[in-house]
Amino acid sequence: MKLYERLADTLGERIEQGYFQTGDKLPSIRTLSQEHGVSISTVQEAYRLLEDRGLADARPKSGYYVSPQNRTPELPSVGKVIQQPLQVSKWAHVLHMFNSTNSELVTWLSVALPNLESSTLKPLQSTMTDLCRRVGLRGLAYDRLNGAEELRHQLARVSVDSGCQLSPDEIIITTGCQEALSISLRTIAQPGEIIVMESPGFFGSLQAIEASGLKALEIPCHPETGMSMEALELALEQWPVKAILTTPTFNNPVGHTMPDSHKQRMLALATQYDIPIIEDDIYGDLSYSYPRPRTIKSWDTEGRVILCSSASKTMAPGLRVGWVAPGRYLQKIMHMKYITSMSSTTMPQLAVAEFIAQGGYERHLRKVRAQYKQNRDRMLEWVARYLPEGTRASKPQGGFVLWVELDERIDANELNDHCQARGVSIAPGNLFSASDKYRNFIRINFAMTTDEGVENAMRIVGEEVDKMLA
Amino acid sequence: MKLYERLADTLGERIEQGYFQTGDKLPSIRTLSQEHGVSISTVQEAYRLLEDRGLADARPKSGYYVSPQNRTPELPSVGKVIQQPLQVSKWAHVLHMFNSTNSELVTWLSVALPNLESSTLKPLQSTMTDLCRRVGLRGLAYDRLNGAEELRHQLARVSVDSGCQLSPDEIIITTGCQEALSISLRTIAQPGEIIVMESPGFFGSLQAIEASGLKALEIPCHPETGMSMEALELALEQWPVKAILTTPTFNNPVGHTMPDSHKQRMLALATQYDIPIIEDDIYGDLSYSYPRPRTIKSWDTEGRVILCSSASKTMAPGLRVGWVAPGRYLQKIMHMKYITSMSSTTMPQLAVAEFIAQGGYERHLRKVRAQYKQNRDRMLEWVARYLPEGTRASKPQGGFVLWVELDERIDANELNDHCQARGVSIAPGNLFSASDKYRNFIRINFAMTTDEGVENAMRIVGEEVDKMLA
Repeated sequence: MKLYERLADTLGERIEQGYFQTGDKLPSIRTLSQEHGVSISTVQEAYRLLEDRGLADARPKSGYYVSPQNRTPELPSVGKVIQQPLQVSKWAHVLHMFNSTNSELVTWLSVALPNLESSTLKPLQSTMTDLCRRVGLRGLAYDRLNGAEELRHQLARVSVDSGCQLSPDEIIITTGCQEALSISLRTIAQPGEIIVMESPGFFGSLQAIEASGLKALEIPCHPETGMSMEALELALEQWPVKAILTTPTFNNPVGHTMPDSHKQRMLALATQYDIPIIEDDIYGDLSYSYPRPRTIKSWDTEGRVILCSSASKTMAPGLRVGWVAPGRYLQKIMHMKYITSMSSTTMPQLAVAEFIAQGGYERHLRKVRAQYKQNRDRMLEWVARYLPEGTRASKPQGGFVLWVELDERIDANELNDHCQARGVSIAPGNLFSASDKYRNFIRINFAMTTDEGVENAMRIVGEEVDKMLA
Repeated sequence: MKLYERLADTLGERIEQGYFQTGDKLPSIRTLSQEHGVSISTVQEAYRLLEDRGLADARPKSGYYVSPQNRTPELPSVGKVIQQPLQVSKWAHVLHMFNSTNSELVTWLSVALPNLESSTLKPLQSTMTDLCRRVGLRGLAYDRLNGAEELRHQLARVSVDSGCQLSPDEIIITTGCQEALSISLRTIAQPGEIIVMESPGFFGSLQAIEASGLKALEIPCHPETGMSMEALELALEQWPVKAILTTPTFNNPVGHTMPDSHKQRMLALATQYDIPIIEDDIYGDLSYSYPRPRTIKSWDTEGRVILCSSASKTMAPGLRVGWVAPGRYLQKIMHMKYITSMSSTTMPQLAVAEFIAQGGYERHLRKVRAQYKQNRDRMLEWVARYLPEGTRASKPQGGFVLWVELDERIDANELNDHCQARGVSIAPGNLFSASDKYRNFIRINFAMTTDEGVENAMRIVGEEVDKMLA
């Protein structure tokens, strides 16, 4: 154990033992340095670790304070996944979830919808209005097959933040990230072939795998570090896998992020087995700390990584602006995009390009990153307050979804029915697996915790859980 | 032969023999009724037939006049298609065509782009601007999976014009007609299976068939009545066909329309062989006469016809607003839509809905139908004037594309290269076939003949043809 880790542990214990209480100012860096006889930078490292663990918060020009959520739920357990390729189903459940979101009476904890009410999104809307008035014919005509040049230019620029060096010509605009994922899968694999993915994993990907006649081989994930490298290695050894599909950064539904070393290891494995990685980076820009984590794509020198993303989580999903940087599969994926929907809608592309170019995106990100972090802490407090003791929850470092493990007697589909009857929807865990796992898990959206309805919704979820356990 | 047909023939002969010259006023209805001893309505029928044949034009409150294009090119020949399922290729040519349209120096006779400069489209643009300002959050959020309710409601209303009785819940909104066609094909057929389609046929469909691993079985078409019923019957007898894919009304590229009797016969055959029909009706509303021809779907009582269409040809392609009425395949196609791109972009859906609801679409259709008819005649005159004698051309009764058969020594790909060097693009015929047919055919867009550049472009095409024949 390193010096700063030992120091962090010491401080952490004092916080947990109540020596320092919520909101207390913690000792200054200088004080601790003298007290423990360690360097300033060691203390700084220790505090950074405490921040990561959610125990301390930095306040600019003031110092460190004890975070409010010192009664943090434990992390969810690692899934015991049966490692064999499975056909996916559950479309009925997905459809049910989508259709239930049409009622305005429901508080949607179920859907991964970002905060669309942020004041920093207003410029995007006014840009759109302005563009409608301004661009005339261009907005009505087909755009280029690979998408509006302005947008590809801006996306290439932004990708630098994730460690990439993309040129605009390496990017194809799609109808949301779902189209990017879907055309990538269909380009890479033929019916009957096997795709490796996280368990739990995004149900949109699972459904795409099913509808394309492919099979999903689920790899268990650690709630903090994501896909188990050992299990991945084993899977690649044992099965003729065609591609790795992964959301390595602020994964949906768990929120975990693969450490850089795991990302590089995954790329090395993909190289060894000569298969592509389809990297879903849709939440990547929503990192609570700066700089955001690197994409696997950023280490890719062979064009092996197909990077998929969109504006749906970072800006607004109704725009349906997504993109794919397909590496060596550029031509094939361009063809698949053409036959799938030709070009994408012109106007939203131009609006997103202008929003980024004028600095609106950067401002928006700064705002929502801070907000989502705060929201996560608030939501974790509510989980601790309203759900029974023993409930576990993930602790994402970015994004806006939480993965919650309930008592194993709870069937989350049933819980959802009870909650919906009271105007609250949650996403049942078994949507996120091809097998029938995660029946006692739920995914919760915390993008909107400032809305007072959300706290009440969590109270309702808690009451319904209590009833089911009674 | 009926009385009015005989009368029309008599008048037609007099026009063709030069007894009546271009622009001459033809005898009044009353005069002809007395002269030939037939009823007023018989003369009216005869004149309507002459109009359909392009020999006479009605001028309101004045009477009938000889149409300018009395030197009409002959119809193109019927393709001698080898009837066996083929894998499609030619993606490189399609891509080349799309990419070449990015230069503003080129007059695009190649692309099936409607007239976007029509004043009747202005309200659509202002509706969009207005909506951006007005709808707020709704425009940013995911819409329902099957699309905006307002739009589905309006589309159901409009479908009555084609003889359909659809409810809004039977319609799914897609990202253009291409997505509608693509998800329908992928829902109906598995890789290796056979789809029957017109020859020549739309290359977007051909490419979708290829990329989905399907095979195209091409059925020869008559330039006026479309798919040969005899050849279709033979094909269904000899091959395990999974679906019929057809554009029966104002077909692209030929412009032909199947008579009602053929449409009903096709449906009967589909019933007999228990296969679905995927009906592409994208040009259907652009009929030069009222009412527009019925869709095959309008006779379908079993939910066997999957009707695909969009706003791309009738309004504007950049909106990417398409739809599918999948009949009995509703649930499966909804799933395929979900995994392909989730919901479609929200704002353009709302704009199209409002444009239709406020009567803007009806006004726009009235205007462009008349304009495209005039354009067709003008384009046929130019074909006769600028292209060598013996050049043949189709005579669409709706839409805005013309199918032109050149001297068989002409390779249209080569011709296109020569033309592009002089700033004109045409669509080479072999794009419209899975086999290497139609090498001496071209498709020409006449949506914009009012643009004086277009006449000049036709002059250039003629000069290049002459050079190649010299």
